Amino acid sequence: MTLPVETFFLHPEAQGTLQQQIQQMIARGILSGRFQKGEKLPSTRKLAAHLGVSRITVTIAYTELQANDYLVSKGRSGYYVSENAPSPPTFTATPEGTDAVDWHRAIGQKFSGGRSLSKPQDWARFRYPFIYGQADPTLFDHANWRLCALQALGQRDFNALTTDYFDQDDPQLIEFIARHILPRRGITANPDQILITLGAQNALWLTTQVLLTQRRRAVLEDPCYPALRDILSQSRCHVTPVRVDQDGLPPYAIPPDTDVIFTTPSHQCPTNATMPMERRRALLERAQEIEALIVEDDYEFEMSFLKSPSPALKSLDSDGRVIYVGSFSKSLFPGLRLGYLVGSQPFIREARALRASVLRHPPGHIQRTTAYFLSLGHYDALIRRMGAALQERRKAMEAALADNGLQISGRGYFGGSSFWMRAPREINTSDLARRLQARSVLIEPGHAFFAGSHQPSNYFRLAYSSIPSNRIREGVNLIAEEMAVVA
Amino acid sequence: MTLPVETFFLHPEAQGTLQQQIQQMIARGILSGRFQKGEKLPSTRKLAAHLGVSRITVTIAYTELQANDYLVSKGRSGYYVSENAPSPPTFTATPEGTDAVDWHRAIGQKFSGGRSLSKPQDWARFRYPFIYGQADPTLFDHANWRLCALQALGQRDFNALTTDYFDQDDPQLIEFIARHILPRRGITANPDQILITLGAQNALWLTTQVLLTQRRRAVLEDPCYPALRDILSQSRCHVTPVRVDQDGLPPYAIPPDTDVIFTTPSHQCPTNATMPMERRRALLERAQEIEALIVEDDYEFEMSFLKSPSPALKSLDSDGRVIYVGSFSKSLFPGLRLGYLVGSQPFIREARALRASVLRHPPGHIQRTTAYFLSLGHYDALIRRMGAALQERRKAMEAALADNGLQISGRGYFGGSSFWMRAPREINTSDLARRLQARSVLIEPGHAFFAGSHQPSNYFRLAYSSIPSNRIREGVNLIAEEMAVVA
Repeated sequence: MTLPVETFFLHPEAQGTLQQQIQQMIARGILSGRFQKGEKLPSTRKLAAHLGVSRITVTIAYTELQANDYLVSKGRSGYYVSENAPSPPTFTATPEGTDAVDWHRAIGQKFSGGRSLSKPQDWARFRYPFIYGQADPTLFDHANWRLCALQALGQRDFNALTTDYFDQDDPQLIEFIARHILPRRGITANPDQILITLGAQNALWLTTQVLLTQRRRAVLEDPCYPALRDILSQSRCHVTPVRVDQDGLPPYAIPPDTDVIFTTPSHQCPTNATMPMERRRALLERAQEIEALIVEDDYEFEMSFLKSPSPALKSLDSDGRVIYVGSFSKSLFPGLRLGYLVGSQPFIREARALRASVLRHPPGHIQRTTAYFLSLGHYDALIRRMGAALQERRKAMEAALADNGLQISGRGYFGGSSFWMRAPREINTSDLARRLQARSVLIEPGHAFFAGSHQPSNYFRLAYSSIPSNRIREGVNLIAEEMAVVA
Repeated sequence: MTLPVETFFLHPEAQGTLQQQIQQMIARGILSGRFQKGEKLPSTRKLAAHLGVSRITVTIAYTELQANDYLVSKGRSGYYVSENAPSPPTFTATPEGTDAVDWHRAIGQKFSGGRSLSKPQDWARFRYPFIYGQADPTLFDHANWRLCALQALGQRDFNALTTDYFDQDDPQLIEFIARHILPRRGITANPDQILITLGAQNALWLTTQVLLTQRRRAVLEDPCYPALRDILSQSRCHVTPVRVDQDGLPPYAIPPDTDVIFTTPSHQCPTNATMPMERRRALLERAQEIEALIVEDDYEFEMSFLKSPSPALKSLDSDGRVIYVGSFSKSLFPGLRLGYLVGSQPFIREARALRASVLRHPPGHIQRTTAYFLSLGHYDALIRRMGAALQERRKAMEAALADNGLQISGRGYFGGSSFWMRAPREINTSDLARRLQARSVLIEPGHAFFAGSHQPSNYFRLAYSSIPSNRIREGVNLIAEEMAVVA
């Protein structure tokens, strides 16, 4: 490719003659790696016109650079970056502290330092990836996704692709969610009660901003999804972690001054507990009694391959007290970044205004692609295929874990894609995870899920959403081996 | 399509016999519009298995519904929603105030009520759309965008499509911006000094959250991009609007207790003023003197078809004092929702952590598609084509405005895609815009750009990025006509 002439310009503060400035500019481009070996330079005529200098000035500069072996001339075809030109350094981290700015003072609010789960970006290279929440290329319906994306790229959808929706969403996606997704959870909602978000993360964040302030109190399940704890701690509200039991969040333990209760009733994260119907009613009653709102994160409800899922907590709510969070990250893929909020209009109105201010709207193309994928029935087929595969893997997991005597602490009544595991008390699962990485096994240590500083260190999550069945036994054997070394 | 069996289930609180519950469930589905005329119901066998009831119960329910003309039986092929079934109501806004929740109390922070520009969503149906910032289907290189998207949907890019990048971005896009986009603005940056955002809106929002608090002061240009004013007012920092002149923001008018200065030096929004070199230096000196940071919104620099753009303010900054905001909304399309932040690491680190908490990362697929579109040279070709078309339109605008005696208040030295217009003092341009809409002309009234409550009401913006050349004269004539009626 020819280097675009627009990337060339003379620095207004540059010293020396025009010819020298041009030479320096090109040499700097090569040395910094912007112009790479074999790339073609603009013609002398073009560069001269662009810079507003005479053509002969450019020609002399090029000839000089050729003499220095920065450039080679290939006759009429023009000038190229020489193969012998000095190699650029690879990008190195700029040394900090060279700024004149005192960043410690300049930064008004710190956001870094959260306690998120860390997953190696190259997890797919590990032989036994018991990791959670990534798309499995062997299960995802890539071919139909491509077709839907292609359809959404068509002339007819030009508007959906390119338009600035301001605070609105793709009406086709909203309509499909209202008519066909929410009814699966027993929820009836109008389009103006639904807001598309950049994944469940974004939905939880928006909800927190709208409902909580420094003077309000949130109840969090303990253990819970660690990113939610970061969101709440950034909002500076008061947080009460409430320890979950075999049935999920116990309503009686929720303090009376609570404003917002965050819960995962269908599928407690990470213990996989399913809240029984009586407790759901009790939870709604408790919320009513103390005038709290409930945020229901209904992640992974699609993975109910053992038994139909119970309806969402939101379906039992006649008060408008429950705000529902849905996501396509598990059923489609996390890089899609699509989720949704369902709630009463006064709430959705504020969440919508905040979303508009923060990011306007999720990109139109991915909304339309998803609407096609859903409405053509590919989504349902995908869920069935994933369910079948997960069921097989789960069986293999259960057998291998039992044979090795490993203890499952929570397994999910309806299905799901992971087990919550308890190791003997003396095992620190962070160390265990590190040692297992060296043997190409990835597990998720459990401490980040717990609140406070005295977290139990012997829990871990074993997911089976990304590991093929036929590697499960071997992988579990390795885990048992490493655990035996310590114990 | 057959209605997926998953969308059927019995409400746990339902009354009556199982058969009645099934009938009600289906009737409700039809009445609510979830099941539409002609759609096929699951077979009695399937539905029975799904609900855990006997098949005969389902069969009787179906037969009853057939008798009521909700369903029709087509023999062995099964049951369908009858064409004579009652029609669902179209979605109507749920009446507010039926909730048991006191939303006035429950909402901790209000975000609605900002003063944003409103554009009709169906702007493309207007014959003379002098509106700003939407993609022009006659100019955008839709064919190559499709090809790039298709490539990014390929098997090789499965990871870029689906992966959860956590707080990271597509390395290919970052690399291209570092090597080929920023150098056009005279900026050198390492990958760890760049963060991809959901458009410039998101970049400005993240920056505000990191740098400003209730105790800090921001300087805003007056007039300015209205969404920026909303972002700052939501952050509750102190805001000083500084009136711009023909050369943009005057440095001497910036109060000494300012922490952050927001500015659009290349192309003041909305007046189109370009800040001269001496003033840029003076602005940097002023910032240094009072230890303020500068946020440079370099929107629309690509639209410099009259003259090469001057380098960005950031290129003159050796202190690390300038934070640079770029966007692909104008050069590609706004529905893409892609922009970027460039700044020192300590700042980018906090913006990255906040972005991760708010939304994780912009979807991988659109990042990769953009990386291909840029690296294959389509972007440069597009910019050239847009420049040529905008230049032609601008000529037509200038001629038509001059012939009608309309006054251009700011026109942009390097190009751009709009004029900032001043009407005679007695004209209220909001009224003017409303009357012009009735004649299929869209203009943007100017008052939303101004700070405070005593905004001048006689300014408006006339953009030529979405109107074909051959409609410009007619459209401008109509504007002049309507202005004459009032004046």
